[in-house]
Amino acid sequence: MGTTVFLKPNINFGDIMTKLWGGRFSKGTHKLVEKFTNSIHFDYKLAKYDVLGSLAHIDILKKAKLLNVREHKKIQSALKAILKTIENETFKIDLSFEDIHSYIQHLVEIKTGKAGLKLHTCRSRNDQVALDVKAYTLDNLFYTQKNIEHLIESLEKLATKNRELIIPGFTHLQHAIPVSIIEYFSAYIQMLSRDHQRLYNAAMNIDLTLGAGALAGTFIPAGYYQHKNSSFLMDIEPTKNSLDAVSDRDFIIESLNTLATIGMHLSRLAEDMILWSTQEFDFINIDDAFCTGSSLMPQKKNPDVLELVRGYSGRLFGNLTNVLTMMKGLPLSYNRDMQLDKEPLFDSFEIVQKELAVLTELFKNVEFKKENIEIQLEDESLYATDLSDYLVQNGVAFKDAHKIIGHLIQHKLANTVKIKNMSDSELKKFHPTLNERIVNKIINPKTSINSKKSLKK
Amino acid sequence: MGTTVFLKPNINFGDIMTKLWGGRFSKGTHKLVEKFTNSIHFDYKLAKYDVLGSLAHIDILKKAKLLNVREHKKIQSALKAILKTIENETFKIDLSFEDIHSYIQHLVEIKTGKAGLKLHTCRSRNDQVALDVKAYTLDNLFYTQKNIEHLIESLEKLATKNRELIIPGFTHLQHAIPVSIIEYFSAYIQMLSRDHQRLYNAAMNIDLTLGAGALAGTFIPAGYYQHKNSSFLMDIEPTKNSLDAVSDRDFIIESLNTLATIGMHLSRLAEDMILWSTQEFDFINIDDAFCTGSSLMPQKKNPDVLELVRGYSGRLFGNLTNVLTMMKGLPLSYNRDMQLDKEPLFDSFEIVQKELAVLTELFKNVEFKKENIEIQLEDESLYATDLSDYLVQNGVAFKDAHKIIGHLIQHKLANTVKIKNMSDSELKKFHPTLNERIVNKIINPKTSINSKKSLKK
Amino acid sequence: MGTTVFLKPNINFGDIMTKLWGGRFSKGTHKLVEKFTNSIHFDYKLAKYDVLGSLAHIDILKKAKLLNVREHKKIQSALKAILKTIENETFKIDLSFEDIHSYIQHLVEIKTGKAGLKLHTCRSRNDQVALDVKAYTLDNLFYTQKNIEHLIESLEKLATKNRELIIPGFTHLQHAIPVSIIEYFSAYIQMLSRDHQRLYNAAMNIDLTLGAGALAGTFIPAGYYQHKNSSFLMDIEPTKNSLDAVSDRDFIIESLNTLATIGMHLSRLAEDMILWSTQEFDFINIDDAFCTGSSLMPQKKNPDVLELVRGYSGRLFGNLTNVLTMMKGLPLSYNRDMQLDKEPLFDSFEIVQKELAVLTELFKNVEFKKENIEIQLEDESLYATDLSDYLVQNGVAFKDAHKIIGHLIQHKLANTVKIKNMSDSELKKFHPTLNERIVNKIINPKTSINSKKSLKK
Amino acid sequence: MGTTVFLKPNINFGDIMTKLWGGRFSKGTHKLVEKFTNSIHFDYKLAKYDVLGSLAHIDILKKAKLLNVREHKKIQSALKAILKTIENETFKIDLSFEDIHSYIQHLVEIKTGKAGLKLHTCRSRNDQVALDVKAYTLDNLFYTQKNIEHLIESLEKLATKNRELIIPGFTHLQHAIPVSIIEYFSAYIQMLSRDHQRLYNAAMNIDLTLGAGALAGTFIPAGYYQHKNSSFLMDIEPTKNSLDAVSDRDFIIESLNTLATIGMHLSRLAEDMILWSTQEFDFINIDDAFCTGSSLMPQKKNPDVLELVRGYSGRLFGNLTNVLTMMKGLPLSYNRDMQLDKEPLFDSFEIVQKELAVLTELFKNVEFKKENIEIQLEDESLYATDLSDYLVQNGVAFKDAHKIIGHLIQHKLANTVKIKNMSDSELKKFHPTLNERIVNKIINPKTSINSKKSLKK
Repeated sequence: MGTTVFLKPNINFGDIMTKLWGGRFSKGTHKLVEKFTNSIHFDYKLAKYDVLGSLAHIDILKKAKLLNVREHKKIQSALKAILKTIENETFKIDLSFEDIHSYIQHLVEIKTGKAGLKLHTCRSRNDQVALDVKAYTLDNLFYTQKNIEHLIESLEKLATKNRELIIPGFTHLQHAIPVSIIEYFSAYIQMLSRDHQRLYNAAMNIDLTLGAGALAGTFIPAGYYQHKNSSFLMDIEPTKNSLDAVSDRDFIIESLNTLATIGMHLSRLAEDMILWSTQEFDFINIDDAFCTGSSLMPQKKNPDVLELVRGYSGRLFGNLTNVLTMMKGLPLSYNRDMQLDKEPLFDSFEIVQKELAVLTELFKNVEFKKENIEIQLEDESLYATDLSDYLVQNGVAFKDAHKIIGHLIQHKLANTVKIKNMSDSELKKFHPTLNERIVNKIINPKTSINSKKSLKK
Repeated sequence: MGTTVFLKPNINFGDIMTKLWGGRFSKGTHKLVEKFTNSIHFDYKLAKYDVLGSLAHIDILKKAKLLNVREHKKIQSALKAILKTIENETFKIDLSFEDIHSYIQHLVEIKTGKAGLKLHTCRSRNDQVALDVKAYTLDNLFYTQKNIEHLIESLEKLATKNRELIIPGFTHLQHAIPVSIIEYFSAYIQMLSRDHQRLYNAAMNIDLTLGAGALAGTFIPAGYYQHKNSSFLMDIEPTKNSLDAVSDRDFIIESLNTLATIGMHLSRLAEDMILWSTQEFDFINIDDAFCTGSSLMPQKKNPDVLELVRGYSGRLFGNLTNVLTMMKGLPLSYNRDMQLDKEPLFDSFEIVQKELAVLTELFKNVEFKKENIEIQLEDESLYATDLSDYLVQNGVAFKDAHKIIGHLIQHKLANTVKIKNMSDSELKKFHPTLNERIVNKIINPKTSINSKKSLKK
Repeated sequence: MGTTVFLKPNINFGDIMTKLWGGRFSKGTHKLVEKFTNSIHFDYKLAKYDVLGSLAHIDILKKAKLLNVREHKKIQSALKAILKTIENETFKIDLSFEDIHSYIQHLVEIKTGKAGLKLHTCRSRNDQVALDVKAYTLDNLFYTQKNIEHLIESLEKLATKNRELIIPGFTHLQHAIPVSIIEYFSAYIQMLSRDHQRLYNAAMNIDLTLGAGALAGTFIPAGYYQHKNSSFLMDIEPTKNSLDAVSDRDFIIESLNTLATIGMHLSRLAEDMILWSTQEFDFINIDDAFCTGSSLMPQKKNPDVLELVRGYSGRLFGNLTNVLTMMKGLPLSYNRDMQLDKEPLFDSFEIVQKELAVLTELFKNVEFKKENIEIQLEDESLYATDLSDYLVQNGVAFKDAHKIIGHLIQHKLANTVKIKNMSDSELKKFHPTLNERIVNKIINPKTSINSKKSLKK
Repeated sequence: MGTTVFLKPNINFGDIMTKLWGGRFSKGTHKLVEKFTNSIHFDYKLAKYDVLGSLAHIDILKKAKLLNVREHKKIQSALKAILKTIENETFKIDLSFEDIHSYIQHLVEIKTGKAGLKLHTCRSRNDQVALDVKAYTLDNLFYTQKNIEHLIESLEKLATKNRELIIPGFTHLQHAIPVSIIEYFSAYIQMLSRDHQRLYNAAMNIDLTLGAGALAGTFIPAGYYQHKNSSFLMDIEPTKNSLDAVSDRDFIIESLNTLATIGMHLSRLAEDMILWSTQEFDFINIDDAFCTGSSLMPQKKNPDVLELVRGYSGRLFGNLTNVLTMMKGLPLSYNRDMQLDKEPLFDSFEIVQKELAVLTELFKNVEFKKENIEIQLEDESLYATDLSDYLVQNGVAFKDAHKIIGHLIQHKLANTVKIKNMSDSELKKFHPTLNERIVNKIINPKTSINSKKSLKK
């Protein structure tokens, strides 16, 4: 027996024939519906992963004797040829197809004839898409890790180059206590390191599986789905649960959340740099190549890159809100709403990767204006805690010490005097252990930094 | 004296020269920065509004004698020629430009030479972009209103065609009280009418102004900015406040919120239709042309359009979150972050317009399966409130009536009997005024609907 | 015939009896369920509106002859007594009740006996709650308008008091062009005025209706629901659509969006003030009474109020996201999810009202440090646009003028000279019309402000 | 020398004295500001963790010789006494304090006199609060894990009890392929297991550190901060970076995201159960104790618990949006905005814990209505994939098989016949291998389930 098909002759299938479905339909799809439901204009980014996934799938079909050696070979060659065009960037997509999956199916059919009609055996698009997007996500999680490593390196270089630099530390954007530039950048490196770890955790939570079928499994035994492939992106395992496999979008939400958190961190770093490059702070100079001007005001040199980094956080948060909301209240298992997961995912990865790359270069081109920073370090209020610490170390109860120095500061402000210039007798009115020499020793950036023993070096 | 320019000869301005700024820069922009900051790949959608805005602007410049008649004419012709290509869809964009504004400036310069260099006189991109986006928004608010009108019409037609149809009314997705299909669809028409009003309110809140300059105003007197143009989209007024004018994005947020609310309403309508087309409800049939199938399961006919409508609500909410977050904490006045307002705005308008259009067609192709609905109307619990109303109308205090009928229902369920089949003596155990005749009269969809006098006809 | 009730004697109704429902239930509610579903701990804020709504409702019942004069009088007295305790703040709530509505029903029953059992005639909680929340919202929209008026007044006073003050105008947080403090604060007043208008629009979109019943209407004719009440908050109209009336939450979303937008505006104002009170800007002093200190650092005076105002924007946006998401995909008509609309609504109103009130006071206590601001005004780059304007007014094409002044600025920066100190011959290298006298006239804050003719006075 | 303090006598410190700061202030705080900035009404939930943190802190102070044995003992006793009142729920808070930290400080001072003034030595509230919230989070992450385990158990029991049950599997809410109830619930167990893992990952990402001081470290050497405590919640380590330590809120965002994802999963489970308890599906009965009624409609039994679970997802997403937005663009290091992290965190934990607990009980009280489910299983379209699989196993290429069965289904629908009733000759028109016996064997729920070999048992 062969593969004879008894098509009912009186039906004009029109455009349904290029679709992966249609047999039970008596009419073609309305044009507006096609425009509304098609996804090839964005899911073409999955092309590489779709081909890799199909390469794994046909190996499984061969093992299960659903493809013979010749058919397998034929389809494999076709898929590899397509993969090559993707890799050398000559792959062209045809936007008239419903999605990238039917387009690649079509390409395979053209090259393989009858054999190609077997490619989709025991596979649903639901399962296929889940695998493709998981592989895409895995690939991009690792790539984003690399981007983070580069930015950390760039920040470390800048910090090391300026290792002697001390800046005012801020809380509430008010002068607090001096901090070293090393400690400052290491704060962002801490954040980025946590992000790096979260990207890793997100990757570890991804299972690459096949065998879910449309939602209920397939007739191929589970063992066949244990499949190592040439690409690390396609080490397939049998599905843990078929209903979950086709409708799980946790890995997307976890990725979007990690990307939103990275974006939040970068928005803070950007804010600091924007502040530091104001005329009023004037702590840094950013190279012209990383700034832009104004169409009306000839003098402007604006930190646009940093502003965009700050602003993109909104989009990263919005993409997360989007997918969470989209998933809310969806009954098991797959629903078409889930197709809308891809654009926000692709968008967030691309934004964060671009941000990390451009900031890596920008920080190679930042210069500190030490003289302006030093002026700010002369603000004596930065050393109030050090003065209070001195009292504590001399036996004053902490809350008393805090009050004494509070009054000293109040006195200084009310009378616009410098503490450094106060006489011994004036100082002793606040506390007997205070005197000019002590006070002058304490009110000094280096002394302040060196007194902080709690920081691991 | 002319317009002699003394360029310093030893500077290679590279790619800065096609920008609207650059004179004070000693280097070209880093390639990564260009990719990161450029916006022409999405703001080309403003082309039409940009040209209209420039047409108004040059009229003002002419009045202010900053363009002579000849220069004005030249630029106007150039702009009108560009407008024509936009309108007949032959306009081509060059992605190597920073944004649509510099590209159109460039096109004008090519066509007008020296005159074109005056186009941007007394105008900043900040002010220009604000005007363009406001005009875009106004245009699209009105267009979306039209879309809503079409959907309302489609729903009204469907309701009228089925005007005798009574369906179970639901609260908590449980059978509540029968309602007419007219009342049912009129609920959604109410929602859409409110949306229509909100679109109008949003439009009325938009001021089309010029004269803000970069942020501080221009040297052209306010009166010159009172300008009626041929297009209703460009009835310009002088700026109310220059700092606000260049950094106000309220109209975008108000639009996004209105679009999100429309999307929420449509997600509810979609949910109802998805439920009604399940095998279990089976209240409606949606035409094949508005459904799609499965690549694996040959029998499937899925309401994908409705699912996507439901799912897109996530994106509409995400776009709103995005812009609100982006604006959070931005100091006065314009910051580059604000450039990121456009993609979510365009996206939300396009989604909602597509949704409204496709649903308008879909509802022309919905059929009710009356026999299945009638089976559900036999559920006697739907008439419990009517029974209780009967008691109230016969002098029973409401809370007592509620309890009595509650017990009757409980009795019915516990003994799996039909109230309609209970004898007079059984019924009278619950309340003396109850009897077979009365009960059989009340338990009837038409009686139920007709008894609701509070609804305005 | 009376109101005899035939309770089945063998059922222990337990705690169901204090509920407004329960007759058909054979068991009491699980304790965990009660805790999970009860709402009295937050909906007690509706008490006043619930009583006002019931006062209107019983008038309608009287007109419809469902309450006789004596019953009406009795219930009215009971309700008015409760209203009085609410107004004089002696109203106590009992958290063991399900919600404020059953509690007030209970209070009325205690005071009126049999009559009270008729209070809920032809009314569902769905309809009642919708009315209560609409009246609450209306009341609070108007109250928030008042708050906005007070803040506007406070800003106007501060601006007027400092009317001669000129500050650097910023774009991208970089010095742009000088602006007057009047123009600066008027930008925020513009935003607040739009918010005021949006609050009004939101109020106008609210219909106070009764007659929806549970979802399908009642047997009381529509005309009876046309009802003017003593309180403007309760001018009732007949329901427009009964299904929509019990499940419409648009007015909540519109309110939350308006409140989110106000919060966004205030976050910007807060950001500016936080920046201006840094040691680096040092443009203003905020009174001690509006700042707080540090538990460790004795010198700290932090602008906490402003920081919280900035931070609360997150909550306002989150509340909006919350309700939009909660409504997504809900089938008609009422679903219990909708109960979750109230906490975010109450929270957003309270936050915004508190913010407006505290900022109104704070701005009465802000002082400008003019000497520091004047130092910043010496930055010559602030006048680059004015220099370019001068060239334009002398016939140089705008783009040429922009370039010439760009080079002048670049020259100034590269050689760290002041333009004001450049000789005529140096200046003329850039353009023949430039000279020392001209340049010194232009580089002046007042000249700059006065040259901006486009701003309406 | 002692701890003599030289208070300036002419200053009335008013209410500042109960604060942990105030020495440098010349005025008390404005009443509105206190109301606006205080946090004790919500941060009292940290009381336990604050005391535990202080117990660890004083051990460190003792090691560092900043407290002598007697002082340490005194404070420790005071703290332990407070801890006891917290644990036995007799702890009372005083809302007139700024926050829980100053209140507990105050309680210690009352009990210990002078010694208490040393409690806060080398500690800032920034560092203290970070530690408290981290310990709270850790505790609640673990507690939520327990809740998840209980729900999984409850679902497993329900599934096991009904292990023979087969239900229609759905995609797009349309009948797809039969699935076993075991596979169905195991899908949700998969989701919950991933959530369990994510809670664990979130816990592992939390570092409990001290030594950050206000932002710059303290004079106590890092080694002293390596401190094992009796409670596992307080295994302290030295700070990794002091600026990051006081301003990192990643652990809150990661928790909120995990909780949002749990909420999303539960909203899906709730949706399924709501659908299954409609009159139209009627697959399950939920015990009366887990449902509520209507105040107007006597017959109603509503799945309110499930609806609230679905609706709360909005709040969980909103809380996440809130904190992400609040953190956006904040400069280093601590800013007061960050105080607003706690309410959303507490709220999300409490919601999810309540949801999990109530669902655990609810699922103990769900009964399946097998007869209704069986009726749905008679829908022959559920077996279309099995029929197609049969063809594939008999050598038909998959795409051909899909088409053949598609036509068979179309034929069945067009002629309203049952496939099972078709004659051999009719069936063979579609494919020669089809016949009555085969078709009757395949169209059977058990056969369908058993044919799915890809699912691991």
